[in-house]
Amino acid sequence: MIILGVDPGIATVGYGMVEYSGNRFLSSDHGAILTPARTDLEDRLNSIYDELCRLIVYYKAENMAVEELFFNTNVKTAIHVAHGRGVILLAGKKMGVPTFEYTPLQVKQAVVGYGRAEKQQVMAMVRMLLNLQKTPRPDDAADALALAICHAHTIR
Amino acid sequence: MIILGVDPGIATVGYGMVEYSGNRFLSSDHGAILTPARTDLEDRLNSIYDELCRLIVYYKAENMAVEELFFNTNVKTAIHVAHGRGVILLAGKKMGVPTFEYTPLQVKQAVVGYGRAEKQQVMAMVRMLLNLQKTPRPDDAADALALAICHAHTIR
Repeated sequence: MIILGVDPGIATVGYGMVEYSGNRFLSSDHGAILTPARTDLEDRLNSIYDELCRLIVYYKAENMAVEELFFNTNVKTAIHVAHGRGVILLAGKKMGVPTFEYTPLQVKQAVVGYGRAEKQQVMAMVRMLLNLQKTPRPDDAADALALAICHAHTIR
Repeated sequence: MIILGVDPGIATVGYGMVEYSGNRFLSSDHGAILTPARTDLEDRLNSIYDELCRLIVYYKAENMAVEELFFNTNVKTAIHVAHGRGVILLAGKKMGVPTFEYTPLQVKQAVVGYGRAEKQQVMAMVRMLLNLQKTPRPDDAADALALAICHAHTIR
């Protein structure tokens, strides 16, 4: 099962691919879609949509795991991120990839086994589970990998 | 100039088309894209995106006018609507239709000439300007027509 984790945003959309089989992670990759500030919102949404469709094809993603949005965050930020999240879900739908949503709590629970784990603990587990030399950068990409791992553990 | 006004949402996306030439409105049409509740968010977004692309082609829309989102509204609602607004802006971009954004204040100012006008005054002006027999229904469609009129008056 090839899972693409996506950490939604507008300026930075983190993504992380994991290949999971027989209770093991066989391979992984990660990165971020960056859109320039001072660009029209529709152009940024268009870049995110196109790039995500390209990644789905490139990695042959079979499932997508996308972070749920907090409702207690700054409203302006939340609205901004939700625009991006809309086109991310559309990309999954258009490319025929079933999408699953997880809260940060669920991710921590699934990756570390403890819903109130610190960010550093999550990063350390991601690095260990995926056998990475160093902590993935940027943070959004690491979060996306954690989402993908969470989905792998959930469907197990 | 054929302008498609769009009142963003998830359950109901109002749309209103106006044809504007020589300071007059030559024709208009309106309606709403409805998505069923208890349907996955990505399916609703997909319906909104596809239907809006279809409307842009059907009406040969040249410009799109989309309402800006309030930041002082209920956060959960705002996040929901922003998902829809994301795919609405993407549809405009993918179909090559330049999109313009207006606040409710700007719409009232442009349609009634008074930013604090009551909803009923806006509806009455929309009806008069477009020479309609009765007030457009649903409200979302009437709001979308007001957005299109606002854009027509702004580019005049």
